[in-house]
Amino acid sequence: MLDIAIIGGGTAGLTAAIYAARAQLSAVVLEKFYTGGQIVNTETVDNYPGLPHISGFDLSDALRSHAEELGAQFRMEAAEKVQYRDGVFEVVLSEESEPICARTVIYAAGAHHRTLDIPGEQEFLGSGVSYCAACDAAFYAGRTAAVIGGGDTALSDALVLSRGCKTVYLVHRRSAYRANAELISRVKQAENIVPILDCVPVAIGGTDGVQTLTVKHVPSGKQRTLETQGVFVAVGMKPNTEMLEGVVDLDTSGYVIADETGTTSLNGFFAAGDVRTKPFRQLVTAAADGANCVHAVEQYLTAHQ
Amino acid sequence: MLDIAIIGGGTAGLTAAIYAARAQLSAVVLEKFYTGGQIVNTETVDNYPGLPHISGFDLSDALRSHAEELGAQFRMEAAEKVQYRDGVFEVVLSEESEPICARTVIYAAGAHHRTLDIPGEQEFLGSGVSYCAACDAAFYAGRTAAVIGGGDTALSDALVLSRGCKTVYLVHRRSAYRANAELISRVKQAENIVPILDCVPVAIGGTDGVQTLTVKHVPSGKQRTLETQGVFVAVGMKPNTEMLEGVVDLDTSGYVIADETGTTSLNGFFAAGDVRTKPFRQLVTAAADGANCVHAVEQYLTAHQ
Repeated sequence: MLDIAIIGGGTAGLTAAIYAARAQLSAVVLEKFYTGGQIVNTETVDNYPGLPHISGFDLSDALRSHAEELGAQFRMEAAEKVQYRDGVFEVVLSEESEPICARTVIYAAGAHHRTLDIPGEQEFLGSGVSYCAACDAAFYAGRTAAVIGGGDTALSDALVLSRGCKTVYLVHRRSAYRANAELISRVKQAENIVPILDCVPVAIGGTDGVQTLTVKHVPSGKQRTLETQGVFVAVGMKPNTEMLEGVVDLDTSGYVIADETGTTSLNGFFAAGDVRTKPFRQLVTAAADGANCVHAVEQYLTAHQ
Repeated sequence: MLDIAIIGGGTAGLTAAIYAARAQLSAVVLEKFYTGGQIVNTETVDNYPGLPHISGFDLSDALRSHAEELGAQFRMEAAEKVQYRDGVFEVVLSEESEPICARTVIYAAGAHHRTLDIPGEQEFLGSGVSYCAACDAAFYAGRTAAVIGGGDTALSDALVLSRGCKTVYLVHRRSAYRANAELISRVKQAENIVPILDCVPVAIGGTDGVQTLTVKHVPSGKQRTLETQGVFVAVGMKPNTEMLEGVVDLDTSGYVIADETGTTSLNGFFAAGDVRTKPFRQLVTAAADGANCVHAVEQYLTAHQ
């Protein structure tokens, strides 16, 4: 039986693997396709402290190599279900494989950004289309960006971008933003944020990178094309927690309710990274979660000899 | 007036500088001598995810370069006092300098390990003498290590080391350990942990690295020399918070009481890294704190326009 089953091979899971190996705990990282998580397709990551201008692929590779060199084990299989019985977690894999048994689970399956599903969105991902203003705002200093969305994240993204951008279009499908009042008031005061209300995005255009965003005015059906170098999609995130319903407490958005140590409502089951309730979802805070969870696992194993 | 005064230039402060620059907030990092914090003299850091086998100096340099390239400002001066009046923080520097005024403070002044103050301790720092078993245990697999101390950290360090080491001496000046019962019971069960009670360390010896630890039996005054390749000092940490007494709530050990976001008892004053109350003090969790604090500062500044 393993000490830890690590579900998910993004930054949190890979860091958990590094710390587990260093603590000489037996562990396996389960990841369906490839390790790295949300960043693997990101052209340039500039917010992981100490490794500026690194590609998402290279950063993921650095984390995985670090873990492998310490002896971490990986399996390219998806966890499909987690069951807990008599102090043992059973992680069910695809039909052909035997379940994995472990004394603890670190659940680091991440979250995914909701997408617009319009032409150009996939094509310009990482070269103009972004899902993270905190990550990429710096690339748009002195340029124009459009933010899609009307909630706290969208308005907060628009404000972050407005500090460096010439113009920020804030495109929302409704006639009023649904963010908190303070954010709305701050957006109104920002001279370079241009509200584009009652509009939905229909296409992103460009050649080497994004050059235009076409939006449709919902009431009239009329289209208009905005010139912009960046499109920031902020229409929400969705944590990858379908398999946890009924297993562990989730918040109303589906995030695993967990504190800084990763401790959840289920003893021995820890949550790390974007999948948990936390103040700020970043690579470095995901990595910290991986470390914190292994520390919590060590304490749990000590108490449950 | 600055948006943020960052007090301390270790991993937490440098990451705060990176995130502040990315958020286009004005900030200055105050650090007395050199940036990098506790790791600058560490020969090999192997627990910062993605940068294995890096020297402490090089890792510090990577963090500082990352911050500087984004435009972060540094001042080689020590903060001596922090005063808060009418929504403004005044950070008093040495007598000759004008105080620095800022709308918020990120306090990341770190902590220091209490030392043994015996011959060999400084000489073999980073080549046999360590203050962090979680960091360095892997270097001692199959070898012998000694842990000095009798509290939770010392016993926990001994257990971490016992998983890989041939033998672990656990040296404590009293006749019984004062760690929690579970840890004591686990240590008793570990066959390769050898208790050395009623003994104080008097000298660390060796040539290229540590080879011996000489201890004195307090009741009899007799000395004995243990062969060991590692000496792990676990006689406590001391947070650098002298200047904060009466300014912000500290716990009984002197740590700034703060949550994951760095929020303290004083509005606008945030604490990051080893200096705050937190479950696991590591480079990556200090870096995460720096990021989380800047995020909290952004929310604070938005709410206090």
